[in-house]
Amino acid sequence: MSIKITVIGAGSVVFSLGLVKDLCLTEGLRGSKVCFMDINEESLDVVYKLGVRYAEDLGSELRFDKTLNREESLQDADFVINTATITHNEYFMKRRRDLTTKFGYFYGGTGMPEYHNIQLMLDVAKDMERICPKAWILQAGNPVFDGTTLMSRETNIKVCGLCHGHYGYREIVRVMGLDPNRVTWQAPGLNHNIWLTHFYYEGKDAYPIMDKWLEKNIVSYWEEKEKGGGYSAQLSPSAIHQYKMYGLMPIGDTPRRGGWWYHTDMETRLRWYGGPIGGGDTPEGRDNILKGKERHYQQMKEAAYNSDIRPVKLFGDKKTSEQHVPIIDGLVNDHEGFFQVNVRNDGALPGVPNDVAVEVPAIVNRKGIQPLRVDPLPKKILLECIYPDWLRMERTLEAVKSGDKSMLLFGILESHQTRSYDQATQILEAILNMEPNEPMAYIEDINKHFKWPGNWNLGNK
Amino acid sequence: MSIKITVIGAGSVVFSLGLVKDLCLTEGLRGSKVCFMDINEESLDVVYKLGVRYAEDLGSELRFDKTLNREESLQDADFVINTATITHNEYFMKRRRDLTTKFGYFYGGTGMPEYHNIQLMLDVAKDMERICPKAWILQAGNPVFDGTTLMSRETNIKVCGLCHGHYGYREIVRVMGLDPNRVTWQAPGLNHNIWLTHFYYEGKDAYPIMDKWLEKNIVSYWEEKEKGGGYSAQLSPSAIHQYKMYGLMPIGDTPRRGGWWYHTDMETRLRWYGGPIGGGDTPEGRDNILKGKERHYQQMKEAAYNSDIRPVKLFGDKKTSEQHVPIIDGLVNDHEGFFQVNVRNDGALPGVPNDVAVEVPAIVNRKGIQPLRVDPLPKKILLECIYPDWLRMERTLEAVKSGDKSMLLFGILESHQTRSYDQATQILEAILNMEPNEPMAYIEDINKHFKWPGNWNLGNK
Repeated sequence: MSIKITVIGAGSVVFSLGLVKDLCLTEGLRGSKVCFMDINEESLDVVYKLGVRYAEDLGSELRFDKTLNREESLQDADFVINTATITHNEYFMKRRRDLTTKFGYFYGGTGMPEYHNIQLMLDVAKDMERICPKAWILQAGNPVFDGTTLMSRETNIKVCGLCHGHYGYREIVRVMGLDPNRVTWQAPGLNHNIWLTHFYYEGKDAYPIMDKWLEKNIVSYWEEKEKGGGYSAQLSPSAIHQYKMYGLMPIGDTPRRGGWWYHTDMETRLRWYGGPIGGGDTPEGRDNILKGKERHYQQMKEAAYNSDIRPVKLFGDKKTSEQHVPIIDGLVNDHEGFFQVNVRNDGALPGVPNDVAVEVPAIVNRKGIQPLRVDPLPKKILLECIYPDWLRMERTLEAVKSGDKSMLLFGILESHQTRSYDQATQILEAILNMEPNEPMAYIEDINKHFKWPGNWNLGNK
Repeated sequence: MSIKITVIGAGSVVFSLGLVKDLCLTEGLRGSKVCFMDINEESLDVVYKLGVRYAEDLGSELRFDKTLNREESLQDADFVINTATITHNEYFMKRRRDLTTKFGYFYGGTGMPEYHNIQLMLDVAKDMERICPKAWILQAGNPVFDGTTLMSRETNIKVCGLCHGHYGYREIVRVMGLDPNRVTWQAPGLNHNIWLTHFYYEGKDAYPIMDKWLEKNIVSYWEEKEKGGGYSAQLSPSAIHQYKMYGLMPIGDTPRRGGWWYHTDMETRLRWYGGPIGGGDTPEGRDNILKGKERHYQQMKEAAYNSDIRPVKLFGDKKTSEQHVPIIDGLVNDHEGFFQVNVRNDGALPGVPNDVAVEVPAIVNRKGIQPLRVDPLPKKILLECIYPDWLRMERTLEAVKSGDKSMLLFGILESHQTRSYDQATQILEAILNMEPNEPMAYIEDINKHFKWPGNWNLGNK
């Protein structure tokens, strides 16, 4: 069926390339229109040209469009994929990390709520409500948990947040030398906070198999891998520690997070995430990610503009494992599939309020995105992992909604890296006074949005 | 009406004296029997003798009994007042503070759940279920919030937790030079976490009156009082800061608590709770409290044993402002009164789960303890004060129930004073290995009750 898919923030390097490929390789979406929207004209053109040439390579009949205007891009859209971000930009994050380091924070762990990204999601969703009220939004940019919850509450559009973290179970299976295709699994929770409740191999409980493997191999696995490029967070000492605390394996981005005590400084990162650089979430790890993205962008430019190079040669003709396009295919063409989605709970994950976005498995077909009602998570996981994260999210949304600056301050005070009240007020002002980046011009100014309570000077000596 | 009132932990110095006085002065309880129970024979005898002599002084017809046996004390009881504590004992707390100081904690702020006190409450409640299932328990010992919730969930006895913190509103009124008898107020929440939602003076909103007073006087009030013995937490800079954050005045023990950033070290305490000693919750402040209690105990001994001294001369013939005896009088004799109680929520405080103990106003008469259904607290207070405290309580109860030692560890890691994972494991073991105090022999050994998860050594290098 021919539909219109709009991609907001299409200049996003890694994401758009995969999307173009998946769209070209999905038979059922032949003839569809893809509208790329970004505020950065240069990267927008790269993605646009790359799309056109990739479609040529793969003999796809997709039609492409590009625009700098968000409202225009939303006209007649059936699906909106929002991958845009304001502060989760590598350059901005680096600048912010450098600043916060001066105030005693490691790796930017200030606890400052991400106002800009959340406000952007809400702005897009409200535009959609006006311009394309029947369209689905597939939210790719972070924070998916906060944003999916907020858009579900504040608008009437159809909202689904997507992430690829749940594929972390495959990493475990792969390292253990098992065949991922013989695994049956389930890992519900909140986005970036999901837990392997069910794990079967060829129909048998695979937790005992994993336990044996870990017992025998995990220490030597760490030692081996540390001599090379390191290991992913999925099998790090942090992941194993969380497994021991909770009795279920944390999956994907979950072991990248966990308690503050895994993240306080470089030495601690090395202990819990291994050498040589303490995993991706360290200054050096992030620099590597940035370099990778820059290399990737250069390749994309080549593939877009160099007539001697064809995209298919550089990037192949295989679908990615991202879920966006298969979900669209399921909804539009009834090509049923099984996915991991973030949607308003409404009872799917017992113990979590109805109006909170949960990450759960879902059957997707013409009837819609239909979450499975999963088993409740263990009480300890609820009390120590799920509810604290839920509360943090609720405070963030309330801060954005109320514009109460003291709620930003509370977020910073909640960071375990914050050592004193004065440090918190100082870093808050420092972040608020940072030189804005380009996309911030498209969002209500953070310093206009947030105000101290009226009597804030009472009793100040 | 003649009833039997049992006091568990009757050797508690301050509490028992007031109770005896209130009982003697309550006409409707004439002829009742008071059974004092304690494990400390010496202090038990002091309270017993003092009771007998005080009753003589006041011409009361109360009958007194004493026992070292808890089960015996509960036989035929109509009311059980539990004031017993295991670790909230000044000497033990001092010993624990001295220990934790060596591990880098100020004023014992380790976050270690209070297993012993909670287990004791549950043990008493379960005994009551067996021996005097129709009796009320009036819970006086802390933690009232955790204990009231637990006993309400795990037993079928009638549970009410009591505290006197709500009288903090009188301190505000008194300092402002107003007449407490013309004030109408309401301050619901959780125990030690209550907020002045309603405040009227002679029928008019008193918040604007207070705002004006604070604006004009609070700084000079602090300066003035710091020259003397200091001021109570109720009007401290911490209280005012919480008022500015939340728009409602925190009452009683609420401003004594608040965020971690008020409590990190002595300098910080002086900033938020004033000189000369940073309020009661500092090492020096606590030493003063201990000295006061010791003096009081000597006085009580005099009044109990010295034939030249009569209790009424030393301690007067006025009722205290404690609620225990008036509540008994209300329930038994239909002498209706208005109180502040901690009871299972069941909708009294919207936004808090039904099976959690809330602190709310209640009408007490022959029909029972009838909580008022109050207005919801502001969302910000729920998100930043009430829910985090609720979660902390739930984790504590789950730790006690499950015996999972890693939940004790999590409690310590949650303390903002904890700086690293290793510090947390070390202080945990240090506390668990403390020389037990006498009452601990009456409770299941903490080191038997708590065990690490089965795979705790997995991956340890």
